[in-house]
Amino acid sequence: KSHIDCITSSRIIRLPGLIDCHVHVREPGMTHKEDWSSCTAAALAGGVTIILAMPNTLPAITDDLALVQAQECARRGARCDYGLLLGASATNAVSIAKLSHEAVALKMYLNQTFSDLTLPDTSIWLQHLEAWPSQLPVCAHAEERTAAAVLMMAQLTSTPRPLHLCHISTAEEIHLVRAAKAKGLPVTCEVCPHHLFLSREDESWLPGQGRVCPRLGTKEDQKALWDNLDVVDCFATDHAPHTMAEKQGENPPPGFPGLETMLPLLLTAVTQGRLTMEDLVNKLHHNPRRIFHLPRQENTYIEVDLDAQWNIPEVPAHSKAGWTPFAGIAVTGRVERVVLRGSVVYVDGQVLSSPGSGEDVRVKHPLSPGVSSSGGVPLPVNSPPQSAST
Amino acid sequence: KSHIDCITSSRIIRLPGLIDCHVHVREPGMTHKEDWSSCTAAALAGGVTIILAMPNTLPAITDDLALVQAQECARRGARCDYGLLLGASATNAVSIAKLSHEAVALKMYLNQTFSDLTLPDTSIWLQHLEAWPSQLPVCAHAEERTAAAVLMMAQLTSTPRPLHLCHISTAEEIHLVRAAKAKGLPVTCEVCPHHLFLSREDESWLPGQGRVCPRLGTKEDQKALWDNLDVVDCFATDHAPHTMAEKQGENPPPGFPGLETMLPLLLTAVTQGRLTMEDLVNKLHHNPRRIFHLPRQENTYIEVDLDAQWNIPEVPAHSKAGWTPFAGIAVTGRVERVVLRGSVVYVDGQVLSSPGSGEDVRVKHPLSPGVSSSGGVPLPVNSPPQSAST
Ligand SMILES: [Zn+2]
Ligand SMILES: [Zn+2]
Ligand SMILES: [Zn+2]
Ligand SMILES: [Zn+2]
Ligand SMILES: [Zn+2]
Ligand SMILES: [Zn+2]
Ligand SMILES: [Zn+2]
Ligand SMILES: [Zn+2]
Repeated sequence: KSHIDCITSSRIIRLPGLIDCHVHVREPGMTHKEDWSSCTAAALAGGVTIILAMPNTLPAITDDLALVQAQECARRGARCDYGLLLGASATNAVSIAKLSHEAVALKMYLNQTFSDLTLPDTSIWLQHLEAWPSQLPVCAHAEERTAAAVLMMAQLTSTPRPLHLCHISTAEEIHLVRAAKAKGLPVTCEVCPHHLFLSREDESWLPGQGRVCPRLGTKEDQKALWDNLDVVDCFATDHAPHTMAEKQGENPPPGFPGLETMLPLLLTAVTQGRLTMEDLVNKLHHNPRRIFHLPRQENTYIEVDLDAQWNIPEVPAHSKAGWTPFAGIAVTGRVERVVLRGSVVYVDGQVLSSPGSGEDVRVKHPLSPGVSSSGGVPLPVNSPPQSAST
Repeated sequence: KSHIDCITSSRIIRLPGLIDCHVHVREPGMTHKEDWSSCTAAALAGGVTIILAMPNTLPAITDDLALVQAQECARRGARCDYGLLLGASATNAVSIAKLSHEAVALKMYLNQTFSDLTLPDTSIWLQHLEAWPSQLPVCAHAEERTAAAVLMMAQLTSTPRPLHLCHISTAEEIHLVRAAKAKGLPVTCEVCPHHLFLSREDESWLPGQGRVCPRLGTKEDQKALWDNLDVVDCFATDHAPHTMAEKQGENPPPGFPGLETMLPLLLTAVTQGRLTMEDLVNKLHHNPRRIFHLPRQENTYIEVDLDAQWNIPEVPAHSKAGWTPFAGIAVTGRVERVVLRGSVVYVDGQVLSSPGSGEDVRVKHPLSPGVSSSGGVPLPVNSPPQSAST
């Protein structure tokens, strides 16, 4: 393939490396679903050059031993850069805060019960919100009224602290975020592509009845997310790979893979005029970078063919999941090339970087104690995305 | 009985008429459980001269027709003074606010499902919190994290509004109230005698397995309530009468009668040094009067024998419930006499006032539009309770 794109005048644009702030890598513990090597290959294929990894691995990252184990897995396997989140447990509020300099955020699971990550009591939430350094965000899985509850608890700490609400999926939740932002509360949020592009009506034909957590919304929920994109800070995949066999089993585990499909879906929305390119880059680069205090990746960018038309395949090439809820959907826009710190790491469908070449953003960009809170205040941003013809 | 008390030097004190801000009268619709006449007789026997009546009657008070029907029942049956709460429904945020001048508060049921009083969505909560006049409280049945959620929504209105949390029953909830008050939020709360004097350990021997909503707490919850009485604004019975037959049936309905037993239990706590008399009067008179903007009842007081020792009977005399969860408990302190607006309405176990003699506090004390919010700011109080020997 000799860049015949130029001659047929495809529009190729260059975007900054994308940041996906919600990824389940599955290693350690569930490497038949995914591992650091396969997950970060999928990330690069999706134009993502930094993933933020969730702590609900086996073991969950709730203490220093588990953190060291996760760091070692990531160091050996990662093909793109990454940051780790730590997990709040019922008993680790003080001890986990001492490890905050090695992480990008604290994760609190406030609805589902994930073994030792269960936090049933708002008093314990408050302990974590108080102990975790106020310049770093706390990320909450908090659905419906629980989102309002954790937002309240985050206002009851002695110093203001930023709260990031994961995977907002309902009209109720996005209206809460709008009202809270209107009051000036330091809250940010993310929305997942599957909540933007799928709805409850798709559950019947999806593998495993479309089980995902939070559940796919109604058509009204889906519309509310699109109508309120202006208060959405980030797009994030909540990439949660399970094998097709698992999804088709008796009690399918919740979750979809998403890293390889997010950008084409969103580029299609840009083509359709439902989203601006500026907004896409804000929600997938500038905003997550600011919220999580991520370093600038030097000489890092992606090249995207805006006009490439294709159908999402049944089996995306890189995730071990081996399936996608978006199979067969026609999209416009494709990642052509990814350059990470000066090296071409992905081109024309091939991942070129080796496991172990990715860097931990906290090793590269240690947080000084004096860093200010990211709550809603924009830090200086990069230059705007450039249009490039090749 | 010729007041031989004097000669045996019992200590008789005079207290202001008590206000119970949480009573289920059961009329209209469930008069086999209770009606306005029996309920207000029980109130007077308990030293209560104003009850605030909950709107989950049949029909529930969610519109003007139901309000008129309830007002008529109350006008004909009440033997003491009263105020009515209106009920928030999923669709009446605007219309119910127009009736606010006839009520003492709006009630929002945020956990249990009571037919048309179900409010599943925080967006609807916010509609009510916005539409209901900000000088009048909104009362919420909101347990555990739901209490934090409604407290958040009450901060998202365009003007600050007071929120009253009903029947706080857990350590989690009382700690939330403490933290919110420390931040200066306009929140008040009430605690019920059954959560102070009973615990989960009593459920096995109580009628209907002690079903009550919120459920009886653990010993730790119970201790937390006593340890944090300084942030409790009101004692309230949540008088929720059901017949013994109903409580012993297949699926016992939640709720205890409480009007006839609250004061003796609390006076016993005073005798035991667990509570001061000043605190008792604040939580049963001054605070509810301030929070709900209730009128001063002229020439109204109760006389209490501090030294009378007795056991709570199996069947208190006035409520149609015909049982009590406190049967057999030894108490010290008894209501001897109640004087309501100059008339003796209760003496030595006999209720003397007729049905229909009670007054609606909103008829007597209309709220002017300019009345200021009660949120945490004490209004001028009456003279302190006087000690009287007879
Ligand atoms: Zn989640
Ligand atoms: Zn997740
Ligand atoms: Zn930074
Ligand atoms: Zn930039
Ligand atoms: Zn209740
Ligand atoms: Zn009640
Ligand atoms: Zn008043
Ligand atoms: Zn007084």
